[in-house]
Amino acid sequence: MSEESLRRILENFRRYISQDQRFLLRDLLHTFHPADVASILSHMDNEEVEYLFDLLEPEVASEVLREMDEDAREHLLKRLDPERLSEVVGRMESDDAVDVISELPRERAEEVLREMAPEASEEVRELLQHPEDTAGRLMALEVVAVRQDDTVDQAIAAIRKAVDEMGEFYYVYVVDDAGRLVGVLPLARLLVSRSDRKVSEIMNQDVVSVPEDMDQEEVAQVFRRYDLVAVPVVDREDRLIGRITVDDVMEVLEEETSEDIGRMAGTGETIREEIAWKIAGARFPWILTSLVSGLISGSIIGAFQGTIGRFLPLTVFIPIITAMGGNIGLQAASITVRGLALGKIDTFELWRRALREARVGVIMGVFCGGTLGLVAAIWHKNPAFGLVVGVAMWGAILVAATMGTVVPILFRKVQVDPAIAAGPFITMSNDITGLAIYLGIATAMLKWLVG
Amino acid sequence: MSEESLRRILENFRRYISQDQRFLLRDLLHTFHPADVASILSHMDNEEVEYLFDLLEPEVASEVLREMDEDAREHLLKRLDPERLSEVVGRMESDDAVDVISELPRERAEEVLREMAPEASEEVRELLQHPEDTAGRLMALEVVAVRQDDTVDQAIAAIRKAVDEMGEFYYVYVVDDAGRLVGVLPLARLLVSRSDRKVSEIMNQDVVSVPEDMDQEEVAQVFRRYDLVAVPVVDREDRLIGRITVDDVMEVLEEETSEDIGRMAGTGETIREEIAWKIAGARFPWILTSLVSGLISGSIIGAFQGTIGRFLPLTVFIPIITAMGGNIGLQAASITVRGLALGKIDTFELWRRALREARVGVIMGVFCGGTLGLVAAIWHKNPAFGLVVGVAMWGAILVAATMGTVVPILFRKVQVDPAIAAGPFITMSNDITGLAIYLGIATAMLKWLVG
Repeated sequence: MSEESLRRILENFRRYISQDQRFLLRDLLHTFHPADVASILSHMDNEEVEYLFDLLEPEVASEVLREMDEDAREHLLKRLDPERLSEVVGRMESDDAVDVISELPRERAEEVLREMAPEASEEVRELLQHPEDTAGRLMALEVVAVRQDDTVDQAIAAIRKAVDEMGEFYYVYVVDDAGRLVGVLPLARLLVSRSDRKVSEIMNQDVVSVPEDMDQEEVAQVFRRYDLVAVPVVDREDRLIGRITVDDVMEVLEEETSEDIGRMAGTGETIREEIAWKIAGARFPWILTSLVSGLISGSIIGAFQGTIGRFLPLTVFIPIITAMGGNIGLQAASITVRGLALGKIDTFELWRRALREARVGVIMGVFCGGTLGLVAAIWHKNPAFGLVVGVAMWGAILVAATMGTVVPILFRKVQVDPAIAAGPFITMSNDITGLAIYLGIATAMLKWLVG
Repeated sequence: MSEESLRRILENFRRYISQDQRFLLRDLLHTFHPADVASILSHMDNEEVEYLFDLLEPEVASEVLREMDEDAREHLLKRLDPERLSEVVGRMESDDAVDVISELPRERAEEVLREMAPEASEEVRELLQHPEDTAGRLMALEVVAVRQDDTVDQAIAAIRKAVDEMGEFYYVYVVDDAGRLVGVLPLARLLVSRSDRKVSEIMNQDVVSVPEDMDQEEVAQVFRRYDLVAVPVVDREDRLIGRITVDDVMEVLEEETSEDIGRMAGTGETIREEIAWKIAGARFPWILTSLVSGLISGSIIGAFQGTIGRFLPLTVFIPIITAMGGNIGLQAASITVRGLALGKIDTFELWRRALREARVGVIMGVFCGGTLGLVAAIWHKNPAFGLVVGVAMWGAILVAATMGTVVPILFRKVQVDPAIAAGPFITMSNDITGLAIYLGIATAMLKWLVG
């Protein structure tokens, strides 16, 4: 859907809603793919969403709810009555049902679970046992599994049973008598094998699986590394207990990236949040850090008022010293955080990376310090002043570049999210060190030149 | 592989390399999954990579080369002789082969293509016709397609032919007599259907496809929206010409995100780059922007030297005004850029978003301006000074928040990457407007108070 067509669709829906054209709207809604309905709803306000969602067939409503963003469905989940909600959630696969149920307040979740069919609610309860952000919480319990002694024909019979109950699937998993995962069968292999062959003879024994307690970010790395579309989940005894599909993993990757960006910029997760004071609140910690660090920078300037009073042009280069330090620190930090997130940088590379960045800092410092020193010397017709500005710029850049690399890696080493380090911490320290270097050198040179 | 085990593996490999234990290393290498070999190689230096890659069987070498990062394989591609390279590339699927070939210098690419089997090099040449970053360039030509009048048995025969030549696949596509895509068959459906049924009776007619000239970022959105594992690619006449799989799309998403982050921080794509002046060069445009904007900020301060000379404590709050403006602008901009990238913000929402952010700016401005004004008034025992600082802070924050939202959306409207706007442009303009507001208000108040 292009932006233009989306805009037109939204206009039409709004007109029909204002005319209360329920039958027309119902038909219209069902001509779209559920994913498109979800995206249309995400652009409407809460009352419109409620009105339209009411018109959907349970089967479609279930798909739409699954596809909606968390923030877009938050209001809807609050308003739907438990019967409708359990009808809609009951048609989802177990992983999607858990997704929705876990967003509900505790009591409401219980209410919805009681309304659902016993086996469906049992599955949801089972999945809810797993800690958030683990493979166990991400998985669906719906898998097609056969015994290793089964024949191809028996495997096909198992698929026949599963095909109506499950969404799409691409693998049959093979287990031993104790339920332990021993192999995997791509469907294409089943299609081309003789019907009396044993599954164990044609299966793939090198099956990549993930343990139930693996962190979801690591699960995503496994998908990326081995180019998977689905991965089986096993418990501590290696027994097959579920499977994770690539669409869920893409969502995880997206969330983790947004989280990283949010942390680096200190914004929290507020892309679609509408209430201004909530947004301001999410950004508050970062703002407070800036305020405090700004006051520290300010007191450094305050401490050097004597120097500044004796040579006022020093003030002209204050913003450039802090801006360059901040930017170069941010560059080094964002490269490092991204590299850590993608697994392209490992913490044992700390010193190699720091050295690399220090070299870059030297180069950029020489260039920027040189340019700026020259500008200062010519502008104020004072070579000594140029030297102060140049050397200070060089030092500030070198420190900023090195810190920008070292701090995120150190944070990762002690299990703190490096993205946090890249934001508040780097900017704060760079402003302060940059100013101290600049005004310190200036004071020393003034003493030396003037006495 | 944990970091600890990776570190130990690297140590072992290095020891065996220094002892020139070729046979041992060859056996060792082949016990790993090719993706793991690629990741091990990405941690070694160029000579080690060459040495180890030489030991790999062509089949494995092909997988390893495919899995390696662009930056890690750059050197390898320069050094491998054309025969070995064509042997290795010849075993890849067409999309991966194109990936490698397009990284080679023109002449070397020609050399390798001449060495390859004619049909393989023909395929690569065909794919190279498609512009970079389009669906056509991303796709593989290997698809299993059947006619709509074919029976299930005939479809299985087609799969039998494909299963040895292709990697894994999950769908059979259905075309009409003119080769136009008319449906899709999940393999599970084939497995449970009677062998004499017509394909057209059991196929799925609602098939999501993408046109060959669709931008790869849009292709990724299609995968995310419809939760796909593969998508067929069609030409202008709707004829089936290839398919894109989800692993390639995940790579695209990752690249685009890295690109966005790189642009916002002004670093370019240099996570694993080792040569310091190349890294410095990639960051240069951003640094130059900072320098220029710093000089503009400096000349604003220069223009107000009279005011500053009359009341020196004004200098104390210069870094906090620029830091807060910069941070709040970055917050607003990174939220906006991320929202645009995920399709959660549309350009027609410009004014609604701007208003939202202005409200946030007012709230944060009142809080920060108030706090800072109070600090200034008490610190310098001067309420008028507190008022100047407070009002200036408030104004700077309001402008920064609003600009941070408006600029990226405007950039997207005129088809410029919003990530570029979020970086250099925002910081530059915020420093300048912040200082102008601060010193302008101070000058006016000084005139008014002192005359």
